[in-house]
Amino acid sequence: MMRSLLSGQLDDCGIGEEIFALAADMYPVCRSITGNGVRDTLRRLQRHVPLDTHEVPTGTQVFDWTVPREWNIRDAWIKNAAGERVVDFRASNLHVLNYSAPVHARLPLAELKQHIFTLPEQPDVIPYRTSYYAERWGFCMAHNRLMELDDGVYEACIDATLQDGSLTYGEFLHRGETDDEFLFSTHICHPSLANDNCSGLALLTCLAERLARLKTHYSYRFLFVPGTIGAITWLARNSEAVRRIRHGLVVSGVGDGGGPTYKKSRRGDSLIDRAMAHALQRGAPSSSILDFFPYGYDERQYCSPGFNLPVGMFQRSRFGTFPQYHTSDDNLDFIKPAHLAESYRMICAALDIVEIDCRPRNTMPQCEPQLGRRGLYGTVGGPGPGDSMALLWVLNLADETNSLLDIAERADMPFAVIAEAARRLHASGLLIGPDAADHRKRKIQAIDGLTRAASGA
Amino acid sequence: MMRSLLSGQLDDCGIGEEIFALAADMYPVCRSITGNGVRDTLRRLQRHVPLDTHEVPTGTQVFDWTVPREWNIRDAWIKNAAGERVVDFRASNLHVLNYSAPVHARLPLAELKQHIFTLPEQPDVIPYRTSYYAERWGFCMAHNRLMELDDGVYEACIDATLQDGSLTYGEFLHRGETDDEFLFSTHICHPSLANDNCSGLALLTCLAERLARLKTHYSYRFLFVPGTIGAITWLARNSEAVRRIRHGLVVSGVGDGGGPTYKKSRRGDSLIDRAMAHALQRGAPSSSILDFFPYGYDERQYCSPGFNLPVGMFQRSRFGTFPQYHTSDDNLDFIKPAHLAESYRMICAALDIVEIDCRPRNTMPQCEPQLGRRGLYGTVGGPGPGDSMALLWVLNLADETNSLLDIAERADMPFAVIAEAARRLHASGLLIGPDAADHRKRKIQAIDGLTRAASGA
Amino acid sequence: MMRSLLSGQLDDCGIGEEIFALAADMYPVCRSITGNGVRDTLRRLQRHVPLDTHEVPTGTQVFDWTVPREWNIRDAWIKNAAGERVVDFRASNLHVLNYSAPVHARLPLAELKQHIFTLPEQPDVIPYRTSYYAERWGFCMAHNRLMELDDGVYEACIDATLQDGSLTYGEFLHRGETDDEFLFSTHICHPSLANDNCSGLALLTCLAERLARLKTHYSYRFLFVPGTIGAITWLARNSEAVRRIRHGLVVSGVGDGGGPTYKKSRRGDSLIDRAMAHALQRGAPSSSILDFFPYGYDERQYCSPGFNLPVGMFQRSRFGTFPQYHTSDDNLDFIKPAHLAESYRMICAALDIVEIDCRPRNTMPQCEPQLGRRGLYGTVGGPGPGDSMALLWVLNLADETNSLLDIAERADMPFAVIAEAARRLHASGLLIGPDAADHRKRKIQAIDGLTRAASGA
Repeated sequence: MMRSLLSGQLDDCGIGEEIFALAADMYPVCRSITGNGVRDTLRRLQRHVPLDTHEVPTGTQVFDWTVPREWNIRDAWIKNAAGERVVDFRASNLHVLNYSAPVHARLPLAELKQHIFTLPEQPDVIPYRTSYYAERWGFCMAHNRLMELDDGVYEACIDATLQDGSLTYGEFLHRGETDDEFLFSTHICHPSLANDNCSGLALLTCLAERLARLKTHYSYRFLFVPGTIGAITWLARNSEAVRRIRHGLVVSGVGDGGGPTYKKSRRGDSLIDRAMAHALQRGAPSSSILDFFPYGYDERQYCSPGFNLPVGMFQRSRFGTFPQYHTSDDNLDFIKPAHLAESYRMICAALDIVEIDCRPRNTMPQCEPQLGRRGLYGTVGGPGPGDSMALLWVLNLADETNSLLDIAERADMPFAVIAEAARRLHASGLLIGPDAADHRKRKIQAIDGLTRAASGA
Repeated sequence: MMRSLLSGQLDDCGIGEEIFALAADMYPVCRSITGNGVRDTLRRLQRHVPLDTHEVPTGTQVFDWTVPREWNIRDAWIKNAAGERVVDFRASNLHVLNYSAPVHARLPLAELKQHIFTLPEQPDVIPYRTSYYAERWGFCMAHNRLMELDDGVYEACIDATLQDGSLTYGEFLHRGETDDEFLFSTHICHPSLANDNCSGLALLTCLAERLARLKTHYSYRFLFVPGTIGAITWLARNSEAVRRIRHGLVVSGVGDGGGPTYKKSRRGDSLIDRAMAHALQRGAPSSSILDFFPYGYDERQYCSPGFNLPVGMFQRSRFGTFPQYHTSDDNLDFIKPAHLAESYRMICAALDIVEIDCRPRNTMPQCEPQLGRRGLYGTVGGPGPGDSMALLWVLNLADETNSLLDIAERADMPFAVIAEAARRLHASGLLIGPDAADHRKRKIQAIDGLTRAASGA
Repeated sequence: MMRSLLSGQLDDCGIGEEIFALAADMYPVCRSITGNGVRDTLRRLQRHVPLDTHEVPTGTQVFDWTVPREWNIRDAWIKNAAGERVVDFRASNLHVLNYSAPVHARLPLAELKQHIFTLPEQPDVIPYRTSYYAERWGFCMAHNRLMELDDGVYEACIDATLQDGSLTYGEFLHRGETDDEFLFSTHICHPSLANDNCSGLALLTCLAERLARLKTHYSYRFLFVPGTIGAITWLARNSEAVRRIRHGLVVSGVGDGGGPTYKKSRRGDSLIDRAMAHALQRGAPSSSILDFFPYGYDERQYCSPGFNLPVGMFQRSRFGTFPQYHTSDDNLDFIKPAHLAESYRMICAALDIVEIDCRPRNTMPQCEPQLGRRGLYGTVGGPGPGDSMALLWVLNLADETNSLLDIAERADMPFAVIAEAARRLHASGLLIGPDAADHRKRKIQAIDGLTRAASGA
């Protein structure tokens, strides 16, 4: 019955550096919600995992939304009267309002300023701004640079195309022993922002690469999708797969030293919520567990009431609360291998719980079994501090109503210690698991029931 | 579906002054649980609302009680040997033990003192005392005045009658779209005490006057009844109306600057409990929400286990906790138009919730609808601070299991903001309400079930 | 309906001294899990209550355990080269590793030390150590005495036998009006340790002696059993009696001045849990209420998942947390009559709740009954501080869904005050109890349901 912990098999000592290197590799690419930046990035990920890419044509209806036109950009600049580039896309792709309409015009500074976004409170950084669903053109730049510009006429050029094409996303499925799925999702639409979200793309790719080598209970699906429209597109096209999702996690911004932060699913008490809370609270004293709120990343879509999926969100510093957020300061100096490795390990600790958790049964439930003669107990005096108490807790609560996570929480012990105690008791014949097939069936019925209730079906 | 807020239609800028003026008008009248003081007061209220008066004969059995004799008083005094009034009913009707038996006697000071109530700890105020159910005669006076009296013989006269007659109460019903009722109840038995309870009588009269002009979902019943025996009498005579009560509020002492205080119904989690708690906690940082206890005003009767009605109690300072309570210092200086207006507005805020609350349904529950093209969302960046988040909260939770108040509480936003978001979404076709008839039917069944359970039926 | 409080009948002013005297009487006896020490102790208890003794032969299988051999000891010592006893069983029976194998050997100090247990951190006390299930021989002594020993050869002798025989335990049943049982259990296996557990043995004996004279609702069973193996043996041989247990308490270490401590049953919300918590929180500001954990005394067996009995544990200082624990400092100076009496009274207060608690019904549930004319209420002003409020609380909540303990908790009043109010209301005809037979039947069904669920039946 007892499965071994995934985390021991998934981890390796250079994981932080490996994630960092992959993030650094994709950092320069100018991504948006559509276009070649996404395709280029997915090709880089494919060197690690054999993910599929999907192209969904412009104009496709996806629920209340329409797949937008494809955006591609070659160059962009603002030149002064002397013909010098005072703003240059080649220096930073943040200089262009992401998904900006093309433009080539000469116009006085006063008029140009209406198309320029700055952050007066952080005057030396370039802000990241987008305009996906209202067509406009624009530039972003450091406020101090804007202040230095002389009056006069400027030449503004955004050499981009905004045409029918397709929306691109990547998908990788690792098949486990069952069709029940764990969904990982992250957004691939941000240009050169290291934490948000080269870090998430790289971490999930490295995790997928390692999971692919293991035998798991769940099947693991990884989505690399443009924010909002990408998740909506996937949900609209995959109603069958959606029904198989038992747990999920949106991952982004996992390379800085803040947090860690877990935002619960709309349900608030699903296993992924409890597993992530357990992993974070045990693993990081500075962790924050947030209740669900309907703003943020693509958990907004997965947790919309018609789906109500058990999908939470994991990141380090909470988005929007740190000065580097959505600016040119979110660069490769802002993320560190050590933070990436820690984020990776917390996710693995939660996966352990999701993979292993079950409601075992004590085979000798009347009185305590004699642990001493089985070599599970000291012979003079009582139990030692950790291990023996874990054995006693598992035996006492293993009545098929308590899961291993329930036991860990009531015992106030790490899940891994309880799981190890369960493994030892199982090896001694004192503990059995529920029938696996039955277990799965019951799980599916329970989750389907909730989903149907939420969607009003 | 979405009803507009009542409070906007009910409020006007002079409401505090208007309530104060009415309270001041009735302040001099000497009321008791029966008699002409109640009738006089009801006539003053009838200038504002066409309330019915009821007369219930002495001796009528009402549950475990019997309607008592009618008490009327013309004059009362204590004269010293020189024939001077040292205690004079004409100066303050608090000087007479309320409902005192008549007396005319000459007696030495030592003997007289056995019939005199004072407050030695507040030696300059006249206490308010009653003796309804044990026949006795008595006077109340300032302790310092009593101390000044010389020994000697005094003439004590209470020129009152205590005879068969009737108990009088007032009742006004504003008919709403449904027969389901909201009950307002306040006591009319106290003599010249401004806060307790000229303030409550005046506030409810002004509220009734305004509600009568509006189209409401609920029917609103206002009771102006003598404390305890009046509420018991009404309950005993109105078993049909009792079954229609869905929410209710006992109101008294609403003119001082303390509190505000809301005492929950015996149920503790009925809509009026949640609505008042929401209104007070949002509207006044100094508010107190008290759990039910079986002592206080007429909520004792409405919340007796055989009725167990969802009726709470609203006042400012909690009764019995301030020095003016039940003394001559509870005069017109103690209540202020500003406090009366604030009390009125809090009640209106709770009425908004009771009238409007429902469990709406998102018509596009799969993923978020595209708010931008409906003009409900900013086009660059995310939602603004208040409004857009309210739209997202309503959309996310509108699955027919969450009411607007549930949503407001989970979102930690004022009900009015959530209600306005619901109105906008309804106008855009993104939200529908439950079928009104069904809704009401279900509500009635739920409440009847609880009432039957509590009464052991 | 209303039963009178037990505690008034059980208590007497010399109870602390009486318990102390009995504890002192048995203190010198060398007990172990088997042998004549247990038999001798039970004979001393039989002078107070006519308890039965049971002998269960060595080798009897009891669930996962086997009844061990019988241990009897005559003498033990370590002599130095001069033939002087440097360790002497006659001075303290703690000097022998309890249940030690016999030995008679000459051996150098270095080798002898491997058989000696001391407490270096408390160098002047003799520790108490056992070795029941791994055969070994050994001595215990003060660390400082060990340090004083010269090198050289010593003669070690433990003149004991470890042979087939039987395990002995005592049992006393006081029959109440019903077969439903309250189980008291305490361990009888410790040698000269005054608090742990001469105190518990003595307290329960004195309680049994007094209960036996009274008419009670429950039958009370008292077990005086060797720790772990004794409780397991009783459970294995008494499956019928086990099914009748409705409440229970393991009692030990009740003579010191710490705590008091109550450790909840595995269920956590059974009546004994609530009753003990109420008694301790009302009776001792320094009390601790602990959640269940699967280590401690014989509640481990009673609360194993196959039984899941509503049995908690009561003691003063929590075991293992005070320096006298399991040392020669746990002597007759460590326990005091005053503490023993207080412990006794807390148990009696909980028994009051268990015996009396019921879900009464207000016979006049519509509005308040008129308490004044029944002499239950003051006639001028409102209720006095304690009593009248208790009457109002009982009347308000007596709807057959709230028990007296529920009412006491909601009213935040002592159970005894609520019970007295119920008694007065019952005497006035305002309160009736549920049908007793029905009540009991429902209780049994509820508890059986829980037990079956926990045992997987």
